[in-house]
Amino acid sequence: MAMKTLADGTVASPTGFVAGAAICGLKESGNLDLAIVASDRDCTAAGVFTRNQVVAAPVVLGRETLAANNGSIRGVVANSGNANACTGQPGVMAAREMQRSAADALCCVPAQVLVLSTGVIGKQLDVEKVRRGIVTASADASARGGAAAARAIMTTDTRPKTLAVQVELPGGTVTLGGMAKGAGMIHPNMATLLGVLTTDAAVQASELEALFAMAVDSSFNLISVDGDTSTNDTVLLLANGASGVVVAEPDAVAVFSRALIAVCVKLAQMIVRDGEGASKFVELVVTGGRVEAEARAIARTIASSPLVKTAFAGSDPNWGRILAAAGRAGVLLDQSRLALWVSTGTADGPHMQLVARGKSLEYLESAAARVFSQPEFRVHLDLGLGDGKATAWTCDLTHEYVSINADYRT
Amino acid sequence: MAMKTLADGTVASPTGFVAGAAICGLKESGNLDLAIVASDRDCTAAGVFTRNQVVAAPVVLGRETLAANNGSIRGVVANSGNANACTGQPGVMAAREMQRSAADALCCVPAQVLVLSTGVIGKQLDVEKVRRGIVTASADASARGGAAAARAIMTTDTRPKTLAVQVELPGGTVTLGGMAKGAGMIHPNMATLLGVLTTDAAVQASELEALFAMAVDSSFNLISVDGDTSTNDTVLLLANGASGVVVAEPDAVAVFSRALIAVCVKLAQMIVRDGEGASKFVELVVTGGRVEAEARAIARTIASSPLVKTAFAGSDPNWGRILAAAGRAGVLLDQSRLALWVSTGTADGPHMQLVARGKSLEYLESAAARVFSQPEFRVHLDLGLGDGKATAWTCDLTHEYVSINADYRT
Repeated sequence: MAMKTLADGTVASPTGFVAGAAICGLKESGNLDLAIVASDRDCTAAGVFTRNQVVAAPVVLGRETLAANNGSIRGVVANSGNANACTGQPGVMAAREMQRSAADALCCVPAQVLVLSTGVIGKQLDVEKVRRGIVTASADASARGGAAAARAIMTTDTRPKTLAVQVELPGGTVTLGGMAKGAGMIHPNMATLLGVLTTDAAVQASELEALFAMAVDSSFNLISVDGDTSTNDTVLLLANGASGVVVAEPDAVAVFSRALIAVCVKLAQMIVRDGEGASKFVELVVTGGRVEAEARAIARTIASSPLVKTAFAGSDPNWGRILAAAGRAGVLLDQSRLALWVSTGTADGPHMQLVARGKSLEYLESAAARVFSQPEFRVHLDLGLGDGKATAWTCDLTHEYVSINADYRT
Repeated sequence: MAMKTLADGTVASPTGFVAGAAICGLKESGNLDLAIVASDRDCTAAGVFTRNQVVAAPVVLGRETLAANNGSIRGVVANSGNANACTGQPGVMAAREMQRSAADALCCVPAQVLVLSTGVIGKQLDVEKVRRGIVTASADASARGGAAAARAIMTTDTRPKTLAVQVELPGGTVTLGGMAKGAGMIHPNMATLLGVLTTDAAVQASELEALFAMAVDSSFNLISVDGDTSTNDTVLLLANGASGVVVAEPDAVAVFSRALIAVCVKLAQMIVRDGEGASKFVELVVTGGRVEAEARAIARTIASSPLVKTAFAGSDPNWGRILAAAGRAGVLLDQSRLALWVSTGTADGPHMQLVARGKSLEYLESAAARVFSQPEFRVHLDLGLGDGKATAWTCDLTHEYVSINADYRT
């Protein structure tokens, strides 16, 4: 696949998209806290929302908006500093008001705008502040505004997450852009974060939905920072067709789908790398499941095990904890078939085997510890049961994570 | 129920039981690392084992032993310092050798001895050391040896967990004793710890099994330190009938069952209080589930949420995280019915309500923070859906937890 990553690519890189940001005063820090992403023409749109049963007002509204209209979306408005969750009926009114204000600013109707919120739970949203921010951010919006927009959706993130790629399809070149925020509350039970992706490809809404669901499942749903899912997690994809390239034929769909997955995986990895307090990035490869779902379940359980993640923090090659986590994933295992390798290089590079047939091999403890002391390494667990495989990404659980989460809010 | 807690009660408090301990050299610290509990006559016995698919050799052996013989058990031998897990066939041989040595020391056959191990995973057990320890510990065994035995099964525990109660049954007085170790890897997915309970009541094996399963489910299965389950977790109960009191009539069974639950709950609470790095003990009461299982699922999910537990560590009344954890427990909720109270007193005492109908109430933030800053407090979440209720116990997630687990083993 001919795919090119754009220098300084953002959500506003695809043709016809602009983005803007503003400081509206929801964050006590006085940092950017309101973002707008808009298209100059109607977009087909798809969304993946939190599976949490306790959902924020913008999630309720977003599901409702997309269910009624996934063919003529014009933009997304997002705020940080306040999640508008557990705010009851006033919260729903506030989200609607936010949608209405953004529609006014974008010269469209409310049903064409999607709303995102992130931040503290249980506090009423100051709609007046948001309204003023929308006016500023939309006035500011431009093709160069993507970087500021990515900053405006940050909470405990230490850096913005933004990306754009160009890919050659049979009908011409299309661009995909995206931004995301995450850091805490990241768990592979759904896209536990906020993300907005854009493309100037023309994709039918139903096709877009299917491709996006698959991409999210292979990326945002396979990362973990702490095992918690949030009330607000949402990832959106808008396709405005401004490139004139239609994604409909099987060949074009296949190439577009791979590019979409690649963008989602890169954004997801950025989130893990910036996980709250994270000092290490670990790729977990699980092979040998009877089916893919088994490998996924085990990769996700290992990725969110506090004991595994503290061992990573301590550079301790304590693979017993990895096997123990695999054992409680709800998958029937034959422990005498388990094998485990670790490596710091590429997937095809040399690996150090620590476990064979469920049993410790003779290996140099210091060499294994050296792998676990790297800022990036890979752990490969083979279940020995079939061809199912999955890759998940996780970070270590550090003192810094506890500091951030014990002190956040107060 | 007339139940009396014995001063300095241990696993050796019930008539006919003795316990002993030894330093056999498995722990680098040079602390006690081998324990024996023995009865002067045959016991009926019941066991609850880890649900982890990766299980240690003593778990395999324990299940096998109890399946073949739950009517004439004579004792339990336990070591710390080495889990004998992921040790393959040599590990199974070592567990059998440990069983055989203990049987020799107790003058019974191997099938009458249960084996427990805890400690590091993946290292072969030094059977020679264990054998010498068994000789010493069994020579040392007495009715006063329970405290030392409780010390000998500790790993990262900071204190031994031991208890005995006396209860009046229609036929006379019986004693129940117990010891447990836990601290890390504690999760309400099973009795994730080692525990040995004893009683001088006479209880048929099938009855004992049913009563013990219920007691474990209401105690050890409702605590969480870090959400991980181990390869070795086992709780055993031995009943030797030495009191001459038979537990068979419904009245006697009911009283005995309540006492057994009380002992299990107390031991489980001791484990949470001594959770790795824990500085706070939190009781989570969930009411209003459609059925008890719903309340249990939610109580357990809250109990193991890193975000909730770090908020506890920071004395932050961030109830949004509690609701968010409830929302991902796999239970269908109506968020507009959720209510939440916190308190420091008894269950019947005054409570401070923070949430009604899924929405924040007006309350004094400093007053709520004062509750969360206590070493012990209670959180009560009502789901508003029915009569199902459950209580779980958890601790906070602190810097100390990370230190212990990043540094353990290396």
